Amino acid sequence: MGKDIEVGGEFQAKDYHDPPPAPLVDAEELTKWSFYRAVIAEFIATLLFLYITVLTVIGYKSQVDTTKGGDDCGGVGLLGIAWAFGGMIFILVYCTAGISGGHINPAVTFGLLLARKVSLVRAIFYIAAQCLGAICGCGLVKAFQKSYYNQYGGGANSLADGYSTGTGLGAEIIGTFVLVYTVFSATDPKRNARDSHVPVLAPLPIGFAVFMVHLATIPITGTGINPARSFGAAVIFNQDKPWDDQWIFWVGPFIGAAIAAIYHQFILRAGAVKALGSFRSSSAM
Amino acid sequence: MGKDIEVGGEFQAKDYHDPPPAPLVDAEELTKWSFYRAVIAEFIATLLFLYITVLTVIGYKSQVDTTKGGDDCGGVGLLGIAWAFGGMIFILVYCTAGISGGHINPAVTFGLLLARKVSLVRAIFYIAAQCLGAICGCGLVKAFQKSYYNQYGGGANSLADGYSTGTGLGAEIIGTFVLVYTVFSATDPKRNARDSHVPVLAPLPIGFAVFMVHLATIPITGTGINPARSFGAAVIFNQDKPWDDQWIFWVGPFIGAAIAAIYHQFILRAGAVKALGSFRSSSAM
Amino acid sequence: MGKDIEVGGEFQAKDYHDPPPAPLVDAEELTKWSFYRAVIAEFIATLLFLYITVLTVIGYKSQVDTTKGGDDCGGVGLLGIAWAFGGMIFILVYCTAGISGGHINPAVTFGLLLARKVSLVRAIFYIAAQCLGAICGCGLVKAFQKSYYNQYGGGANSLADGYSTGTGLGAEIIGTFVLVYTVFSATDPKRNARDSHVPVLAPLPIGFAVFMVHLATIPITGTGINPARSFGAAVIFNQDKPWDDQWIFWVGPFIGAAIAAIYHQFILRAGAVKALGSFRSSSAM
Amino acid sequence: MGKDIEVGGEFQAKDYHDPPPAPLVDAEELTKWSFYRAVIAEFIATLLFLYITVLTVIGYKSQVDTTKGGDDCGGVGLLGIAWAFGGMIFILVYCTAGISGGHINPAVTFGLLLARKVSLVRAIFYIAAQCLGAICGCGLVKAFQKSYYNQYGGGANSLADGYSTGTGLGAEIIGTFVLVYTVFSATDPKRNARDSHVPVLAPLPIGFAVFMVHLATIPITGTGINPARSFGAAVIFNQDKPWDDQWIFWVGPFIGAAIAAIYHQFILRAGAVKALGSFRSSSAM
Repeated sequence: MGKDIEVGGEFQAKDYHDPPPAPLVDAEELTKWSFYRAVIAEFIATLLFLYITVLTVIGYKSQVDTTKGGDDCGGVGLLGIAWAFGGMIFILVYCTAGISGGHINPAVTFGLLLARKVSLVRAIFYIAAQCLGAICGCGLVKAFQKSYYNQYGGGANSLADGYSTGTGLGAEIIGTFVLVYTVFSATDPKRNARDSHVPVLAPLPIGFAVFMVHLATIPITGTGINPARSFGAAVIFNQDKPWDDQWIFWVGPFIGAAIAAIYHQFILRAGAVKALGSFRSSSAM
Repeated sequence: MGKDIEVGGEFQAKDYHDPPPAPLVDAEELTKWSFYRAVIAEFIATLLFLYITVLTVIGYKSQVDTTKGGDDCGGVGLLGIAWAFGGMIFILVYCTAGISGGHINPAVTFGLLLARKVSLVRAIFYIAAQCLGAICGCGLVKAFQKSYYNQYGGGANSLADGYSTGTGLGAEIIGTFVLVYTVFSATDPKRNARDSHVPVLAPLPIGFAVFMVHLATIPITGTGINPARSFGAAVIFNQDKPWDDQWIFWVGPFIGAAIAAIYHQFILRAGAVKALGSFRSSSAM
Repeated sequence: MGKDIEVGGEFQAKDYHDPPPAPLVDAEELTKWSFYRAVIAEFIATLLFLYITVLTVIGYKSQVDTTKGGDDCGGVGLLGIAWAFGGMIFILVYCTAGISGGHINPAVTFGLLLARKVSLVRAIFYIAAQCLGAICGCGLVKAFQKSYYNQYGGGANSLADGYSTGTGLGAEIIGTFVLVYTVFSATDPKRNARDSHVPVLAPLPIGFAVFMVHLATIPITGTGINPARSFGAAVIFNQDKPWDDQWIFWVGPFIGAAIAAIYHQFILRAGAVKALGSFRSSSAM
Repeated sequence: MGKDIEVGGEFQAKDYHDPPPAPLVDAEELTKWSFYRAVIAEFIATLLFLYITVLTVIGYKSQVDTTKGGDDCGGVGLLGIAWAFGGMIFILVYCTAGISGGHINPAVTFGLLLARKVSLVRAIFYIAAQCLGAICGCGLVKAFQKSYYNQYGGGANSLADGYSTGTGLGAEIIGTFVLVYTVFSATDPKRNARDSHVPVLAPLPIGFAVFMVHLATIPITGTGINPARSFGAAVIFNQDKPWDDQWIFWVGPFIGAAIAAIYHQFILRAGAVKALGSFRSSSAM
C-alpha cells in the first residue's frame, strides 16, 4: 500500500497525497463507533431526502389538480421540485460529508467502491442504510397524507408514456454520470492540493448536478439517478408500474456511476493502472 | 469545565478545541455591550425577516387574485415565497453570525441552549427579541397595506384544510429538525478544524434548509419552523384560526430542535455523556 | 489618523486593522490611473446591470401579453425578474470588487461615504458614472427594441396603483436598508479578521439581498433601491409618471443607506464616536 | 518574457505573479498526455452541457404544448431553462477547471487566446472538441426522442420574429461580453493574490453570468453566447432557419469575447501594452 508513487511522469514532485485504495474488507472498521455513526448518518440523510422531496412532489400535484379546486399555476412547479431534490442533496452532503462522506445514494457509493475509495463492507452497509432510510422517508409522507400519497403517484419513478425502455435507461445512465462525475471532481485529492476551491464548494455543485438532471429528465423517468430513492418510493407506493420499471433505476445509475469512475480514474487521473492493479491484488482475498 | 478530553478514543490528539459548555446563567454577560448588541441584532434581523417574507406572501396573493384583476400566473409563485424565506435566512445569518451567532429563530436558540452553546439568560433575551422583532416586522407590512394584509391572510401560519393536527405537528417537527441539524453541522468545531468548508458556506446551507422545508410544507401548515415568525404574524393578524393552531408552531419546532440537538450531540458527536453531565452539574444551581 | 485604538474595552488586543477614515477630498486620488479605472468599471457595470435587467423585464412583459399572442405563463415570471436583478448584482460585485469596490448603486456609495470608507470626490465620480451607465444601459435596450420598450413601461420605477407615497417611500427605505446593511456586514474588517467566510461569500449575499427585496417590493414600486437604476430608466423612458415619482427613488434609498450606516457604525461596531469625530474634523476643510 | 514589471507605478512590489503570455504554437504541449486529457475533458463537458440543456428545452416545450394534452403552466418554465444553461456551466467549469481550464465555449477560448492565456494550437483543439461534443450531445437528445426533437425546434438558436439582425447580433455581443468579462475577472492572478474569494467562487459567478444572459435574451435569439452550442444544435436539427442565422452565433460571441479581452487587459489590468507587445513579437513566427 505504501507504493503510490507511479502516477505518471509529469507529477514527479507531487504536492498532494493520494490515499491508498480502500481494502475490500476491512474488519477493523466494524469495531469502530465512527463506522456505525456513518451508517446512521446515511440512514437519516436518505430519510430526510425522501421525506422532503416526495412531500414536495405530492404537495405540488395536489395543488395543481384542477378537479379538486386546484389551480394550474399553483404549487411550486416542476422547477420547485427540481430545486427540492438538488437543494436537499446540497444540504445533506454538507451535513454528512464529515461523518460518512455524504453519499446518500447507492450509485455514488458504488462509484466510490469501484474507485477503491470505500471498502466493500462499508458500501454494503451504506446501501442498506440508504434503502431503509428511503423507505422510512416515503413511509412518513404516506403516514402524513395517505389519500394524497396514493392518488398522486407516491413520488415513484417510472417510465413516462411515449418513451422506450432504452431512452429511460439512457437518461438514467447519463444523468448518474453527470452526478458521479461531479462527485469525483469534488473529492479529488490532487485538485484539492492545487486550488483551494474544491472542498469549499463541494456540496454545492453536487447539489446542482442533481438539480440539473431533474430539470432535464423529469419528463422522461421522473428522474431516479438514485436507486435508494426509486426503491423506497416503489416499496411504499407498491404498484405494478414502478415495480416493473424498477430495474431501470438500478441498472442505469450503476452503469452511469461505473462509467464516471472509469472516466475519472483512467482518463482524468491517469492513475488507472495502479487502481486496477491494487483492486485485483486485494480482491484475491 | 477544563476537562473536555474524553470525547472518544479515536481522537486522542485532537486538532480542534471544543469550547466549554455555556453556563445556564452568566451574570457577567449582562454587563457587556456586546450582549445587548447581539440582542439588538436578533431583533432587527427577525424584523427584516418577517417584513420581507410577509410582504412577499401578501404581494403574491394580491397578484394572483383573479377576482381583483389578478392573473393566475402572476406574482412570484410559491417557489418565490420559498426563496424569500430561505434567502432572507441566508443573508441574515450571514450578517449577524459574527454579532449574535445568527439565530433569528427561537427553535434554533432552544436547540443551541440544549447543546449548551448559549446560556439560559442569553436564550431568553434572544427569544424575546425575536418575538418582538417578528411582531414589528409584520406590523410594518400591515401599516403599509392594511386592506391587503387582512384580506390575504396576513402571512399567518395555520393548518390547511384536510390535514390533521398530528400531520401539522409532524411536519413542523421534521422541518425544524432539518433546519437545526443543518445549523449544528455548520457550527461544529470538530468539523471546522478538519475541513475548511464549514464556516465558509455556513449561512448558505442554513438558508437552503429553510428554502427546502418551505417547498415541502407550505401546502400543509404554511411552514412555521420558527415560533417567532408564527407568533408575530398571529399577533398582528389576530384572528381565531392562527391563534387556535399557534401551539403547533411552538411545540413542533421545539421538539424538532430538541431531537436535532440529541441526534447531533449523542449520535454524531459522541460527546453526549459529557454534555449531559455538565448540563446536570450546572443546572443544579 | 494613527489613533484608531479606542474601539471599546473588550477588544484591547485587536486582531484586525481598521483602515483610517477616507478623507472627504483626496487630491492625490485624482492623479492615479486606478481611480479612473474604478470610475470606468462602475460605468460599465451599471450599464450591464440595466441592460440585462431591463431587457429581462421587457422580454417578460412581451411574452405574457395575451393581446399579442403571448401566454400568461410564458416568460421567466416575476421570479425570473427578481433573479435577474439579484444575479447581476452578484456577478458585477464579484467582477468589480477588486477594481472599484463594486458599488454599482449610488445608495451604496452614499452609505460608504457616510461611514468614511470612500472620499467625497470618489463618491461624486462614482455616482455620476453609475447614472451615466444606467442611462446607456437602458438606451441600449431601447435601441434594440424600440416599440416593445415604450409599450411595456421601459423598466421604469413608479408607484403602483393603490399604494400611497408613504408606502412607496417606506418600501424603498427598508429595502435599501437590507441591501446596505448586507454590504456593511460583508466588508467589515473586524469580521474579516475573525472568521474567514466574509470575503469569500461577500458578493453572493449582496446579490441575494437585491433578489429578496425584489421579491417583496416589485408589486409596490417595481423596486428601486438603486437611484441610478431608477434615474436611467426614467431618462430613457421619459414619461410623466416615472418622473413624478422619481424623488421617491432617490430620497428613499439615501435614507435607507444612511440608517444602515448609522446602525452598523453606532450599534454594531460601536466605533461611532470615532467615526463621527473624524468626519467633523476633516469636513472643516 | 521575464520582464513583466512595468504594470504601473502603484504596484511596484507586486504580491502576485503574472504568468508569461502563452506562445502561439507550443510544440511540446502536443507531446503531453495532460494536453489530450484536457481536450477530452472539453469534449465530454460540452457534450453533457448540450445534452442536459437541449433535453430540458425539448421537455419543457412538449409539456406546455396544449395541442397534445400539455398545460400552459407545466414544465420547468423559461426560468428553468435559464437555470439549466447557467447551472450546467457552473458544475462543468467546476469539474473541468483543474483539467482544461473549463472553457466549454469557443468564445471563452477565443477570448483567452487573445489575452495570451492559451496557445493557438490549444485553442484550435479545444474549439474542435467543443463543436464535436456539442454535436454529440444534441445527437443523444435526438436519438432519445426523435419526434419531439424535430417538432419542438431541436434547441437550435435562431433570430425570433420581429427582431432585426442587428438586434440579434448586438444581443449576442453584449451577452458574450458579460460572460467573458466574468471569466477574466475570475481568473485574474492579480486579484487572486489580493483577496481570496476569487478562486473559491469562480465557477459560480461564471455559471450565473450564463443564467443572467439567458433570462434577458431567450426571447430574442434563444441565447447563444456559445458558438459550439449553436453549431451543434444546427448540425443535428439541420433546418434552414438556424443555418441562415448561424453566422450571428459565431460573429457575435467572438466580437463580444474580443471586447471583453480588450476591456480587461487594456482598461482594467493596464498591462495592455505589454500583452500587445508580446503578442506581436511571437506572432512573427
